[in-house]
Amino acid sequence: MHALFGEFIGTALLVLLGNGVVANVLLKGTKGHNSGLIVVAFGWAMAVFVGVFSVAAISGAHLNPAVSVALAVAGKFAWSDVPGYVGAQMAGGMAGALLVWLIYRDHFDSTDCADSKLATFCTGPAIRSLPANLLSEVLATFVLVYAILSMVAPKVSLGAMDALPVALLVLGIGVSLGGTTGYAMSPARDLAPRIMHALLPIRGKRDSDWRYAWVPVLGSLLGASLAAVAHGVA
Amino acid sequence: MHALFGEFIGTALLVLLGNGVVANVLLKGTKGHNSGLIVVAFGWAMAVFVGVFSVAAISGAHLNPAVSVALAVAGKFAWSDVPGYVGAQMAGGMAGALLVWLIYRDHFDSTDCADSKLATFCTGPAIRSLPANLLSEVLATFVLVYAILSMVAPKVSLGAMDALPVALLVLGIGVSLGGTTGYAMSPARDLAPRIMHALLPIRGKRDSDWRYAWVPVLGSLLGASLAAVAHGVA
Amino acid sequence: MHALFGEFIGTALLVLLGNGVVANVLLKGTKGHNSGLIVVAFGWAMAVFVGVFSVAAISGAHLNPAVSVALAVAGKFAWSDVPGYVGAQMAGGMAGALLVWLIYRDHFDSTDCADSKLATFCTGPAIRSLPANLLSEVLATFVLVYAILSMVAPKVSLGAMDALPVALLVLGIGVSLGGTTGYAMSPARDLAPRIMHALLPIRGKRDSDWRYAWVPVLGSLLGASLAAVAHGVA
Amino acid sequence: MHALFGEFIGTALLVLLGNGVVANVLLKGTKGHNSGLIVVAFGWAMAVFVGVFSVAAISGAHLNPAVSVALAVAGKFAWSDVPGYVGAQMAGGMAGALLVWLIYRDHFDSTDCADSKLATFCTGPAIRSLPANLLSEVLATFVLVYAILSMVAPKVSLGAMDALPVALLVLGIGVSLGGTTGYAMSPARDLAPRIMHALLPIRGKRDSDWRYAWVPVLGSLLGASLAAVAHGVA
Repeated sequence: MHALFGEFIGTALLVLLGNGVVANVLLKGTKGHNSGLIVVAFGWAMAVFVGVFSVAAISGAHLNPAVSVALAVAGKFAWSDVPGYVGAQMAGGMAGALLVWLIYRDHFDSTDCADSKLATFCTGPAIRSLPANLLSEVLATFVLVYAILSMVAPKVSLGAMDALPVALLVLGIGVSLGGTTGYAMSPARDLAPRIMHALLPIRGKRDSDWRYAWVPVLGSLLGASLAAVAHGVA
Repeated sequence: MHALFGEFIGTALLVLLGNGVVANVLLKGTKGHNSGLIVVAFGWAMAVFVGVFSVAAISGAHLNPAVSVALAVAGKFAWSDVPGYVGAQMAGGMAGALLVWLIYRDHFDSTDCADSKLATFCTGPAIRSLPANLLSEVLATFVLVYAILSMVAPKVSLGAMDALPVALLVLGIGVSLGGTTGYAMSPARDLAPRIMHALLPIRGKRDSDWRYAWVPVLGSLLGASLAAVAHGVA
Repeated sequence: MHALFGEFIGTALLVLLGNGVVANVLLKGTKGHNSGLIVVAFGWAMAVFVGVFSVAAISGAHLNPAVSVALAVAGKFAWSDVPGYVGAQMAGGMAGALLVWLIYRDHFDSTDCADSKLATFCTGPAIRSLPANLLSEVLATFVLVYAILSMVAPKVSLGAMDALPVALLVLGIGVSLGGTTGYAMSPARDLAPRIMHALLPIRGKRDSDWRYAWVPVLGSLLGASLAAVAHGVA
Repeated sequence: MHALFGEFIGTALLVLLGNGVVANVLLKGTKGHNSGLIVVAFGWAMAVFVGVFSVAAISGAHLNPAVSVALAVAGKFAWSDVPGYVGAQMAGGMAGALLVWLIYRDHFDSTDCADSKLATFCTGPAIRSLPANLLSEVLATFVLVYAILSMVAPKVSLGAMDALPVALLVLGIGVSLGGTTGYAMSPARDLAPRIMHALLPIRGKRDSDWRYAWVPVLGSLLGASLAAVAHGVA
């Protein structure tokens, strides 16, 4: 129970800070409007940093259903614990997205572009081409999880000392592999906020792009599982 | 007495470097004019880094009345020590703001915009909407203090080894949650320099926006206290 | 055999993330288009970070023929192991470049500039002047390898704890010495992707600039060997 | 003797990378042209990082006459060793500046602005006002040395583990206090390269601004000495 609370808080912090930086850069009239990719990439990296070190001692800081599934595939996490972890992560992602909307509400209202509002919740492809987009998400998540598995071995979860390496890893993936689909790499970071986008009474919002929604979910689970298998073989 | 001196020096360093980067970016003719949010966010993060590691061994590096109050609420700091710490922090914040004005004085004089001059001392909202602004400050401070409490446990104050994590935390909050009100999160960083803005003979200055001044003070104290309670419950 | 696999994976990660950030910044329609040198420099630094910490425990993370040769010159690595390491590094560099092309394929197709496509694979000089370009590569690699030798002594290879220092070293070399030739400093980062550029059916590609190709190869081997000698003398 | 060699190499690396980033940002046709303050500030920070960790074990990595003098004032370094250290640092600074000129020579030749060429060697004030400029240099060096003394205590020199904290310190000072005079803080970083500017046959160069040259020298020595005294009192 305590661990689930940790996953909830950690993922909420992750999405609060991660979606927060997107809101700061994309929405109108903010202090960080148009401040560029370097700000977004550092924002997500520090979101991971804060999320991981805040709850590492409580839950092992998976903060991502793809990570929990990969650790289960690798035999380092009980399958029976996966549903609880994933539920807590999804709830955390929704809570984080809700808080971003509450804080930046005046800026959501002053922004005309409905695509920017959606992008503050979830990712979308730069060029829509679902097989290529899926490949991007698979590969980005593969790198994420393969590196995490190298990092944590022989432990089975992340500790506070892993917060900086994981953050730098996400910084690297963000600037290098995030150019195509925006490096979702996690259902809790993409699907959970997308659900909030659909539920919340956001002024002037567009549809939640459900036709794309499966790409980051399938891509991250596939990439993470492949990484677990590859790391086990190596 | 020694600890109070540490809080004074540490907060002075914090505000000197923190307000210094704002001066560099906002004032006219500086080498960093218009260099963007990434510079401001790193400047404040490094300000925290330098302040914390310089005095951590002396005073535990609270450097912020909201942190001292939160630690007292959490039962980790004696209430009787709070007034001294807060006084030293406020004096340090005023000293830091004074030094920034002295160094950048020629640039204050060449800057026409009175709002930029005020912003070099204290924060202001991107969109003035006091309840939303208060929520921003409460939440940003909540994240700051909740994460600090996770970081320091089971200790009761910051050590030199915590300087980098706290700095990265402030970097993250800055780029992600700073888009609305500029992440004051501390009376020593906002109210103390605001008092200096009112006192100093700054050429062409505007009023010190006292109608907004209570927001960062109340917001930071409230957010920090809530974080202490939440962390105790968890 | 295990070590060779480590060199292959590590170099593939290095070039995937390193060339990936160039693709993100140079190719059309990406989320990082035109986001500047700071993004490229952090991208390559984090590429080194991820490559090194992922395989340091397996192979010592040379990830660069020039480093393997330098360690052999310094008497810290058996000459008989050099061919295998170099082969694995070159294969890894080709694999990484291939993956970047696969992920960013739609963006390669939307980019008109053939020079930008080539630059996503390998380096080229800002001003073509082969002796000066060679000097740049020699000196950049000298700094890289001299610093690495200082870092690893008295060990003979990189460990996971060296990943951050090496990454920061590459960040520094990138922003400071990369202005002339783009800091190749490694045949596995320059020649191997250049070969892929020649082999792959990239739409609208130019020639692979073979007249320049020897500069980063000779420059990096020379610079690394000089560093090994100089470090031994000092 | 060995220590002097360390100071020479370390300061040469410091100025090579530090002046190198300025060349990359200011000179025409480079890959980093106009890439902004964030690049310059990280370049100097990483220059300090590389210089310190490369020679910390050999000489204690002062790399700056002001630091050697401050340590002597504080009674932590023999006055009789100061002249040798300062000489090695000045020679290193000249060597580093020479290398930058050699590498970026084609770009020096394509740059018309003589002020930019001078700025690639040494600092100059944004607004010329010698007492204010002196204050800037005194205060920036005070912060640098006060923080270093806090960091090294109870040791008497910098070790490799101090490389990152010092680098971040210089990053912070750079973005926050560098807006007025460009944070020279060291005769080896300012006077030594200025001498090279005077000596070298740089095409289309201006005078070396000798009327300003004493400001960073006096300012850094004064600021460092004051920091040593203040730190001793505290």
